[in-house]
Amino acid sequence: MSVFSPSFWSISPVNQTNSDLINHIVDNKTKPPGALGKLEQVAKQLAHIQSQGASNELSITADKAAIAVFAADHGVAKQGVSIAPPEVTQQMVLNFLAGGAAINCFTKTNDISLYVVDAGILSPVMSDAANYLEQSIGAGTADFSVEPAMTPEQCEQALLAGADVAENIIRAGNQVIGFGEMGIGNTSSASAILSAITGISSEETVGLGTGISHEQLLLKRALVQKGLERFSTKYKGHNTPENVLRELGGFEICQIVGAMLSCAQAGKTIVVDGFIVSVAALVATKINPQVRDYMMFAHGSAEKAHRKLLTMLDATPLLELDMRLGEGTGAALAIPLLRAAVSFFNDMATFESANVVI
Amino acid sequence: MSVFSPSFWSISPVNQTNSDLINHIVDNKTKPPGALGKLEQVAKQLAHIQSQGASNELSITADKAAIAVFAADHGVAKQGVSIAPPEVTQQMVLNFLAGGAAINCFTKTNDISLYVVDAGILSPVMSDAANYLEQSIGAGTADFSVEPAMTPEQCEQALLAGADVAENIIRAGNQVIGFGEMGIGNTSSASAILSAITGISSEETVGLGTGISHEQLLLKRALVQKGLERFSTKYKGHNTPENVLRELGGFEICQIVGAMLSCAQAGKTIVVDGFIVSVAALVATKINPQVRDYMMFAHGSAEKAHRKLLTMLDATPLLELDMRLGEGTGAALAIPLLRAAVSFFNDMATFESANVVI
Repeated sequence: MSVFSPSFWSISPVNQTNSDLINHIVDNKTKPPGALGKLEQVAKQLAHIQSQGASNELSITADKAAIAVFAADHGVAKQGVSIAPPEVTQQMVLNFLAGGAAINCFTKTNDISLYVVDAGILSPVMSDAANYLEQSIGAGTADFSVEPAMTPEQCEQALLAGADVAENIIRAGNQVIGFGEMGIGNTSSASAILSAITGISSEETVGLGTGISHEQLLLKRALVQKGLERFSTKYKGHNTPENVLRELGGFEICQIVGAMLSCAQAGKTIVVDGFIVSVAALVATKINPQVRDYMMFAHGSAEKAHRKLLTMLDATPLLELDMRLGEGTGAALAIPLLRAAVSFFNDMATFESANVVI
Repeated sequence: MSVFSPSFWSISPVNQTNSDLINHIVDNKTKPPGALGKLEQVAKQLAHIQSQGASNELSITADKAAIAVFAADHGVAKQGVSIAPPEVTQQMVLNFLAGGAAINCFTKTNDISLYVVDAGILSPVMSDAANYLEQSIGAGTADFSVEPAMTPEQCEQALLAGADVAENIIRAGNQVIGFGEMGIGNTSSASAILSAITGISSEETVGLGTGISHEQLLLKRALVQKGLERFSTKYKGHNTPENVLRELGGFEICQIVGAMLSCAQAGKTIVVDGFIVSVAALVATKINPQVRDYMMFAHGSAEKAHRKLLTMLDATPLLELDMRLGEGTGAALAIPLLRAAVSFFNDMATFESANVVI
């Protein structure tokens, strides 16, 4: 069976039969109904995800949480669509492994495990760090503006490799898994994928990434447009996830798609980071829509098309911090809010237990 | 000297001489300039607050943080302006002391010390809990819709009592102090204060509080309007903080004003919670505008007038979670973001140290 078949991923619907019980728990805490706003939604979603086969004694958890950062290179980056040259992908992976990046600071501060995945960077990193997973599909993708980013085999392999990463992280006991990415050129790939999947113009999907100049923006848009025309000539509107991913690439994006589907299959909560990870999330829902029930959205990124993409995913992000860094930094900052939701759901007094009479 | 005199509170301006150094530190981290959005502003503000007399070796902290919840009763509450009767103030204070409220859950999860202050509740609570501070100014205020909420002496005493609370918390080593409140009827008092200080109509400042009915909303607005008319007849536009606070009350609001001014005087960071605490923040800036430099704004509350009030304070809140609970819950959820800002400012690698070349 193809990894692009919905039934390859046996994702169970979340338990909706106990909605009344979950609503009762939340509404009976010592607070006015709805007064905890989005945190009440988070608690309810976690309860739906984690209550498979649960009795009346519902308790939820977000204690053991991890972020997986998938890194890969992109052929299109050689054309200068980023503020940084392709070598920076590897340099940043070394920075992640040395503990010096923003995602290291945030995961450490928030007690989150960090996994770093080589999904296909140009020059492999030699590291025996326990949190480093070598899952490289190749030395970067081909330039999607002129040729397919990867072969069909590589694309399938990438989804399976991502699923392996998720299984690893889940085996370590994590209930909540956030996703991040690093890859010079990957907003170009993500914008192309978004346009190809949705039909939205490259005008709307291509943004400033990490902060390129106006000239670079025009170049980036032209290259994405070129890739989209190539795609459209070849497939004539047959924009399946399979066709889109292999043509427009991103080894890290493909691996994130596979990892998300695997998380949902295992009943774990997915925390979606910014624009690129949200594009992967959209593709995952096109493969198996059931995966959406397991997704929480960490933040609204400053990247141009993210807002529209979140609307398509019917998602309200938890944080609005004007960030545009990637690496899973938004996910790492949102996880304390999940834990706060857990703490009130599990531990807060009820009107009866606290003798509060309104 | 009056506690309402700006010079009663000797607040130093934050150190602005090292802006170049602070900007250099933030911009030289391994990330595109500005990519951490609001967290960069948080880090810079903390650096300005905490760098009095600092050398070139700047490091900041938000490790030791506390929330002080000030509780008091309001005469106006007897008229039924809340979803709950006045007795609930005391019941919730007991809930705070027993560890069962939302603020207990959030401070525990986020490793924040919690202080509970009786600023003037109807029936005192007998407790020898170490985090309980008895600073009662009286058994609730008088009904501001018909008479002054408190005497001039009580008002002055309340500001000083709040300052004492802050000193207590600072002596325990806290660098960051968040403020919360509990008091049935206190959105009525806060709305009246906001209208009296700013001239904005009660139509605009009175909202649903914790979720009252339309009939209650009309009553609440009428009572606030009655209080404002009484105020305006008596003072003829002389809307000083002193006149406004003593007429329109809130023992807990007065104590928060004093505590904020005291925090700024000691060079500590203030985390402002929702609508009521923001009203106290506005009053504090009217007493001594310098206090504003020490304030961070935790969240945009769902309470109607909060947005406009934040704009007046030139404040962008860190969180937007549609919450409307009070107790300092927004402040408790924002403190992890301060700590994340600290971690990147202190610990993140520079381009040089990480050998990242862009």
